[in-house]
Amino acid sequence: MDRDNEAASRFVCSVRERCIFETGIKLATIYHQYVGTPFNGESIESLEKAMERSIMVQPYVSDVRISIDRSVLPPKEDHYSYVSLGGNMIDAIVEVTIDGITVRSEMRFDEELGYPLMYVSDIRE
Amino acid sequence: MDRDNEAASRFVCSVRERCIFETGIKLATIYHQYVGTPFNGESIESLEKAMERSIMVQPYVSDVRISIDRSVLPPKEDHYSYVSLGGNMIDAIVEVTIDGITVRSEMRFDEELGYPLMYVSDIRE
Amino acid sequence: MDRDNEAASRFVCSVRERCIFETGIKLATIYHQYVGTPFNGESIESLEKAMERSIMVQPYVSDVRISIDRSVLPPKEDHYSYVSLGGNMIDAIVEVTIDGITVRSEMRFDEELGYPLMYVSDIRE
Amino acid sequence: MDRDNEAASRFVCSVRERCIFETGIKLATIYHQYVGTPFNGESIESLEKAMERSIMVQPYVSDVRISIDRSVLPPKEDHYSYVSLGGNMIDAIVEVTIDGITVRSEMRFDEELGYPLMYVSDIRE
Repeated sequence: MDRDNEAASRFVCSVRERCIFETGIKLATIYHQYVGTPFNGESIESLEKAMERSIMVQPYVSDVRISIDRSVLPPKEDHYSYVSLGGNMIDAIVEVTIDGITVRSEMRFDEELGYPLMYVSDIRE
Repeated sequence: MDRDNEAASRFVCSVRERCIFETGIKLATIYHQYVGTPFNGESIESLEKAMERSIMVQPYVSDVRISIDRSVLPPKEDHYSYVSLGGNMIDAIVEVTIDGITVRSEMRFDEELGYPLMYVSDIRE
Repeated sequence: MDRDNEAASRFVCSVRERCIFETGIKLATIYHQYVGTPFNGESIESLEKAMERSIMVQPYVSDVRISIDRSVLPPKEDHYSYVSLGGNMIDAIVEVTIDGITVRSEMRFDEELGYPLMYVSDIRE
Repeated sequence: MDRDNEAASRFVCSVRERCIFETGIKLATIYHQYVGTPFNGESIESLEKAMERSIMVQPYVSDVRISIDRSVLPPKEDHYSYVSLGGNMIDAIVEVTIDGITVRSEMRFDEELGYPLMYVSDIRE
């Protein structure tokens, strides 16, 4: 048995449910790995790309788009003109595909909740 | 509408599926927040407890148990006799309960896979 | 040669300067390891203690005191009533001692700078 | 007084010593922010660049070079063929310059110590 099947055999749920589980893992990875990272207007794009690529290497990710809120960028004035990445600044969309089933989950600051909500937004079978 | 219902309304899946999603979030939080933390034999228990308590504050967590592999602890010899937490050293069990449905997911180094697998291990409705 | 002397031999600076260097390492460890950690009023003390103990295991630390700003704690209302640790919420004092020289450095949000400054606050020889 | 001078006024040490302190901060930022990040052969360069750029935005950094050990990369076989960044895989050189004084510090796994040592390697006045 190869590793993909071996791993699948550990789960007590359906493939659809596993896709949902995997998207939760990916969104929390984005949040807890990168919150605290320093950035400014010159490095923000490089950071977004590296975040996306690091998530793409995780198992079963078929798409990921991350953008960081540019409205938090301060004018470049001195050595302290930069920002530490906060969870509320991240907008992320992740898709996981296993055996033809694709689940999309998203994370962004939800104005009504006042909270950076992670939620399942689309399931395609 | 209160925040719990508001948040629930963002999801396009069942409560059972949302429980599964939330356990994925929690396991990846454990991994990506704490990997890299320094510890030794004197601090390991304090670290495990703090990890557990930080996960307990996340939404809908009903139980969490974390233990760190003690076999990696070096003898106390000099200032460098400590360990940086690696993903392979963590054994975690997380339960999420929403509306009477409980999902348990686990993470530990899987010897056969050679990988710290996160998987859904039990669903109780 | 033991490891402590071996490590010392890598440095091109004085013991006093090395103490200063080591305090910089410790403050950035506090910031970048723990920013993003979820906490609430029930877990905040456990988090502070675990942070302190994880820093105490690093080389040459002789004292560390960490307190997290309690004014950010929300009233306990629903599953979203918790906080993600931000750099601006941390007040940390770290002391490193090597060969009888002690350097104290501190980190906290500096109101005048609008920045969580890390700085060397005391040197005792 | 501008922020750079304001910040400088908090320190009880020389400019040379402050440069040393700042390099300690930067090396620990690299370690504790990024350890745990997933990568493979396709994303490793993007990760190195993003790490370098995030350090360049921190105060007074004049140069930074980061390379990740490619010998840990597994052959591309399945969804689990990737690596989680460990402290022992990082080779980093950071330079900080304030008022014409430049301090270079480095971090890499030291074979003799069996430890990823951070140390001050050069001071130019």
